[in-house]
Order: sequence, then C-alpha cells, then structure tokens
Amino acid sequence: MVMSKPLAIVLLSSGMDSAVCASLASKHYNLAFLHIQYGQRTAQKELECFYKLSEFFKPTKIFIAEAPFLKRIGGSSLLVETLPIPEEEEEGIPSTYVPFRNGIFLSIATAWAEVIGAEKIFIGVNQIDFSGYPDCREEFIKAFNQAILQGIKPETNIQIEVPLLYLSKREIVELGLKLDTPFELTWSCYKNNEIACGKCSSCRLRLKAFREAGVKDPLPYIEV
Amino acid sequence: MVMSKPLAIVLLSSGMDSAVCASLASKHYNLAFLHIQYGQRTAQKELECFYKLSEFFKPTKIFIAEAPFLKRIGGSSLLVETLPIPEEEEEGIPSTYVPFRNGIFLSIATAWAEVIGAEKIFIGVNQIDFSGYPDCREEFIKAFNQAILQGIKPETNIQIEVPLLYLSKREIVELGLKLDTPFELTWSCYKNNEIACGKCSSCRLRLKAFREAGVKDPLPYIEV
Repeated sequence: MVMSKPLAIVLLSSGMDSAVCASLASKHYNLAFLHIQYGQRTAQKELECFYKLSEFFKPTKIFIAEAPFLKRIGGSSLLVETLPIPEEEEEGIPSTYVPFRNGIFLSIATAWAEVIGAEKIFIGVNQIDFSGYPDCREEFIKAFNQAILQGIKPETNIQIEVPLLYLSKREIVELGLKLDTPFELTWSCYKNNEIACGKCSSCRLRLKAFREAGVKDPLPYIEV
Repeated sequence: MVMSKPLAIVLLSSGMDSAVCASLASKHYNLAFLHIQYGQRTAQKELECFYKLSEFFKPTKIFIAEAPFLKRIGGSSLLVETLPIPEEEEEGIPSTYVPFRNGIFLSIATAWAEVIGAEKIFIGVNQIDFSGYPDCREEFIKAFNQAILQGIKPETNIQIEVPLLYLSKREIVELGLKLDTPFELTWSCYKNNEIACGKCSSCRLRLKAFREAGVKDPLPYIEV
C-alpha cells in the first residue's frame, strides 16, 4: 500500500524565498499553496507569479485569500502610495514593514490548515540577510506556534516550518539552484509590476544574493 | 493640563459580551471599535448593531475589516449554510467553532493597534459559560499576547485585555446592567438576522444568563 504524503501549506508570496520553500516542501509533502492579496503595490505581479508557480509545482490545493483591510490599516510604504519605497538602507524598522503581517498570514494559514488537515505551514522568513522586520525572527515564529497549538482543536497538530531562517540570501539562491526552483517565475521587487526596479531593499538583497552565488538572476531589471 | 486617555481597541462583534467590554473599556480609554465581517450568517445584523453601538459609545475610531476568506475556508456551521446550526448541546468542539477565528481577529487588531497607537485590545472571550472553543481560553490569550510582543516593533507595547474571562454569563449580564450597557442594541443569535431564534447555543447561553440575573432580555425571540 502506498501511503500518500501528508499535506503542507506553503505561504507563497511568489518571492524567491517562498519559492525555495515550495521546492523544499515538495520533497516530503503534498502542497497546499496559500497566497495573500492585501493591497500591496505589486499585488498584480505577485498573483501572476503565483499562478505560474502553481502551474510549475502542481499543488494539491491552492487558496488565494483577500485581506483588503491591511491596505486600509496602512502604516507601510508597501501599502500607502504616497510613502516612497526607500532606495537606501534605513535605520531601525524599515518603512516597508507591514504591521503584524506575518501574524495575519500565519493566522489565515492556521485556519485553512485546520480545515484541510495540513500538518505544516512553511513560511520563508529569514533573519540573516533580512529586512529588519520583527515578525521574521525565530522568537516570533516560536511564540506564534505556541499560540496556534493553544488556539486550535486539541486533536490537531500544526507546526510552522522555517527552513530558511538561518540561511544567508546567497545560501538560499544556492539551495534553490540545487532544487531547480524556477527563479524566473518569482518576483521580489517592492515597487514595480512590470520590470523590477533593482533599487528597493528587496531587489538589492536579491541581486546581492545572486551576485554572491556567482549566477545571473534570470529576471530583467530597469537598473542594476 | 488634562491628559487625554490612552487608546484601546475593542473587538466588537456586537454580541452582549463585547458590548460589556466596550462599557468597561470606556471608563479608562478612548475607544477604537473593530468589527469583522467574515461571511458569518448574521453578518448583516451584526453590522447594523455595530453601527448602533458606535452611535451609543461614540468611539474615537471605528474600523470594519472584511475577511471574506474565512467563509471560503469554511469548516463551521456559522459559515456553511448547508451545515445546520445545532439546537442541542454538542459533545466536544461545537460545529459553530470557526477555525482560529480569534487568532485572525487578534492579528488584525494588532496591526491596527500598531498603526493607531492603541495600547490595549479588549476581547470578550469567556471560559466559564462558554461554547467550548479552544481560542476562548486563557492559555490561548496568553500565548497570543507573547506572539504579539515578539512580532511588533520593539518600542510598541500591546496588551490583550479579557475582563470577562472568568465571569459567568449571569455575572456578565449583571455587570452590563450596572454599567448601563445597551443590551437592546446587541445581537447574539447565530442563526437569524431578524428575530433571534432562542434555540441556538448562543441564544440559549444568553437567555439563561438573563434568566439567572432575574431580568428580561430586551430582545424579542421567536421562541423561548
């Protein structure tokens, strides 16, 4: 008798980290892809990449959750068009920080996991070459996992998986290359929906990672 | 110099518990009312009551968050019309349990609190005469508060307040009467948008509470 693989949710923003998470998860789990549209500037491009990544990975389930309240809550240059996306390193918490975004995303993932019977939630947070967001740190993930276990039905067990937490961006690129992650279908730019800007903190981290890994990023950029 | 009161979010479903929370919070805080529309059967009636309660309490801020993904995730008789709302006591976790609902609601509240500078989030959870939902217990609230503190900006402090946690439903009614909570503007029924059914677990808990407190519930019921 062939046992079917257990089910794992992958929070897939369509960025390179979440795509590498999908490659990792696909080795041991059936995939359930969760994408959140929350009024971010590049929502359209992320959705397009999400569909392409879904064609590539052929997950068992996909779910696109609309969370329009995040844009109305605001408080982030990713959401508020009148706040510029910074092109230089910022001190402290960057303006692109979206308040408690990973808390909201993990909560939605937990609700879905309970209903579809997923055992794992993969999220591509990273605290090495990271953007300084408090909700990308191990302490947060651990505390949130405790809250999940207290808040769900007692017979359910859901674990958050953060396989990229202590990898450098370079190591993430190298891992993705090894796993044949389709980086050409991913999107990292915070600013543009057509050609990546090459200047926002997300583009800069990505470009640095590919440069250090010694390979060319398959995406075109306006300016590098 | 008159110091203005600090700001507190009240998660206001428009049920009697959250209305009593609003009365309590109004003593020491400026109010920010947060209501969530998530495709629940009585969404229309709850919204109507939310507006009436807002007229009554005159909060500094109101926010209505739409979370339509919860209905699409399903898994609860509050959300799925083909599942009946039970009229009898259920064993174990009731069918009206909405997966990780309070996790999602508290996450949205946390994001809003960070942006508007609220220090407290009041939520009317109760684990004495409660419905058996795992996300209404003290262990969950404590664990979630830890996750909040790890996930928000380090200079921010947000505390969840659960003043009704260890009150009986009777005591909640008595407290509301003492504080002049406008129970006539609240809604508890899980089933109907017009006249409360009197039979669902939420109506039964409410009616029992008023009966034990020795006062008449100001709402009309189809059948009691």
